[in-house]
Amino acid sequence: MSTITILGAGAMGSAIATPLIDAGHRVRLWGTHLDDHLVAAVRAGDPHPRTGVVVPPEVTSYLSSDIDVAMAGADVVVLAVSSPGVVDITRLAAPFLTDVRAVWLTSKGFAPDGSGRVQLLPQVMEEVLAQETTRVPPIVAIGGPCKANEVASRHPTAPIFAAAEAPERWARMATTRQYRVAHTTDRDGVELCAALKNVYAIALGIADGMSELGDQPFHDLKAAAFARALAELRLLLDAEGADPWTALGLAGAGDLEVTGLSGRNKVYGMRIGGGERADEALAEMTAAEQTVEGVPAVEFALRFVQQRHPRLIDDLPLLVAVHAVVHQGRTADDIKEAALSL
Amino acid sequence: MSTITILGAGAMGSAIATPLIDAGHRVRLWGTHLDDHLVAAVRAGDPHPRTGVVVPPEVTSYLSSDIDVAMAGADVVVLAVSSPGVVDITRLAAPFLTDVRAVWLTSKGFAPDGSGRVQLLPQVMEEVLAQETTRVPPIVAIGGPCKANEVASRHPTAPIFAAAEAPERWARMATTRQYRVAHTTDRDGVELCAALKNVYAIALGIADGMSELGDQPFHDLKAAAFARALAELRLLLDAEGADPWTALGLAGAGDLEVTGLSGRNKVYGMRIGGGERADEALAEMTAAEQTVEGVPAVEFALRFVQQRHPRLIDDLPLLVAVHAVVHQGRTADDIKEAALSL
Repeated sequence: MSTITILGAGAMGSAIATPLIDAGHRVRLWGTHLDDHLVAAVRAGDPHPRTGVVVPPEVTSYLSSDIDVAMAGADVVVLAVSSPGVVDITRLAAPFLTDVRAVWLTSKGFAPDGSGRVQLLPQVMEEVLAQETTRVPPIVAIGGPCKANEVASRHPTAPIFAAAEAPERWARMATTRQYRVAHTTDRDGVELCAALKNVYAIALGIADGMSELGDQPFHDLKAAAFARALAELRLLLDAEGADPWTALGLAGAGDLEVTGLSGRNKVYGMRIGGGERADEALAEMTAAEQTVEGVPAVEFALRFVQQRHPRLIDDLPLLVAVHAVVHQGRTADDIKEAALSL
Repeated sequence: MSTITILGAGAMGSAIATPLIDAGHRVRLWGTHLDDHLVAAVRAGDPHPRTGVVVPPEVTSYLSSDIDVAMAGADVVVLAVSSPGVVDITRLAAPFLTDVRAVWLTSKGFAPDGSGRVQLLPQVMEEVLAQETTRVPPIVAIGGPCKANEVASRHPTAPIFAAAEAPERWARMATTRQYRVAHTTDRDGVELCAALKNVYAIALGIADGMSELGDQPFHDLKAAAFARALAELRLLLDAEGADPWTALGLAGAGDLEVTGLSGRNKVYGMRIGGGERADEALAEMTAAEQTVEGVPAVEFALRFVQQRHPRLIDDLPLLVAVHAVVHQGRTADDIKEAALSL
């Protein structure tokens, strides 16, 4: 039995508490200053507002002001805040991280580092921690097809834990009968897939939305976009020195599959595919407090490629097309052309 | 402009006539003795009974008795009969194939060769033709995500043509604005993916069906099964000396995606996932004239592996689980366990 402190009481933070309790650990759930109402719901035994599922009563919850209590004696910390919050919370938690065995990261995406270069979140975290503490703990990336509400509901789920060294140790710690954790040493590959799946899910949603214009769905186009997305992930992983086969596995094809089945990025894409303007669809979803993570992600993703692999751009037509639709007023037809490009 | 004769007036045979007409060819559509009522519908200008779409009036159609007229002077022949009919129709057509430039094959699956060994259809065809004629024309396998009703409706579709030599020549011949043909020399890889996608689509359907038991869909499980299926395709392609990356492309992930979105194999799987017995679900669908191609395919697929790569069986838990559910009375839980196996 270990003591595991989860930072972030949103959908994924509250959800992963369930398998961790089932695996026999002491689990603490700490909410950021944005999460106090979520922690209140957890304490009242109400369904979590983001997942609709009650957090197991064995979980101890902490308000944002009590981070020192929440972190005292933690063996493992799970960082589960939204990606724009990762740098701030890493800095806030840094003083308490010197003795933890590992930080597990469910947040996905890119962030600019101190010099303006776009990096994957674990790299940015390591840079922040190197400035703030004397010891940087191993950072374990969690990828694969994991919807928060399904994890919380104990639906069968196969996540993948990625760490440079001995990932099987962390996978074993978290595995239960329903939450069956695979592992890999290819952390960069898992993180790149995780960061880009929301981008490509917009393209899949657009194909789904175009369906509604006709009498039959455009399943062939969605499937072509799916294969195109995997081909681009393969190229990017290869260019980054990651294992390109990660694109075929749980972190790549698996996570893209689940993200293309449901979720806000897909819904946003469907609205565009159905003929709405991208900026209007985003404004309406934002007003309804529906964050579309793929929108900032595609901006970061394009900068990431431009900074690190500028010659690769021509081989990533679907990434470029999503950016053009989301940020440059282009239409769904760009997605169609990119998906069908050979 | 070439003269292209399509053998088989079912869903895919009638559907591919549309892009071939759009590409500027003379197109002839010949029906087998089972297709006479379909040819009658085409001649009457009615929607094709299997796709619901009218065949372009430029297509000339032929009844089964007129194969000699249909084949006279054909440059390319498209074989588009159901997989159990491929050997018979190959034998029937053999005398007319000596001068054709190529045979394009939309039929997918396995068949036993003369010695009882399970083979992919192009190999079996080549063996039959070697016995029957003096010259075996190049056989081009057509894979990738292509639903017949979408191809017939001119929805955007990206098929992939595979031939040992110069596949780009055939791809160029068939490409239109909406039917955008990719190409590869990895014919074995494309055929293996095509033959197995109906098998794995049953597993995806079962995950979809299990969803209905709970309050939320089991999308995580479907996505895990998807990644598991691709991992098994990769192993099989590698063992066969095909290009394992074909599993990531249009023929692998692309075709599996579209087959998991809709179709009879998925529907059959959903019924089993929802709690029906496999034999009862099959009997009802057969009575309603709904062929479930994955059912015979999984039997052939398992024999194919046992005959050629017996040591690989333990690494193909999802294939084994589909066989156990379909043919040995096992339940959907076998699929869950296989999908979550690492």
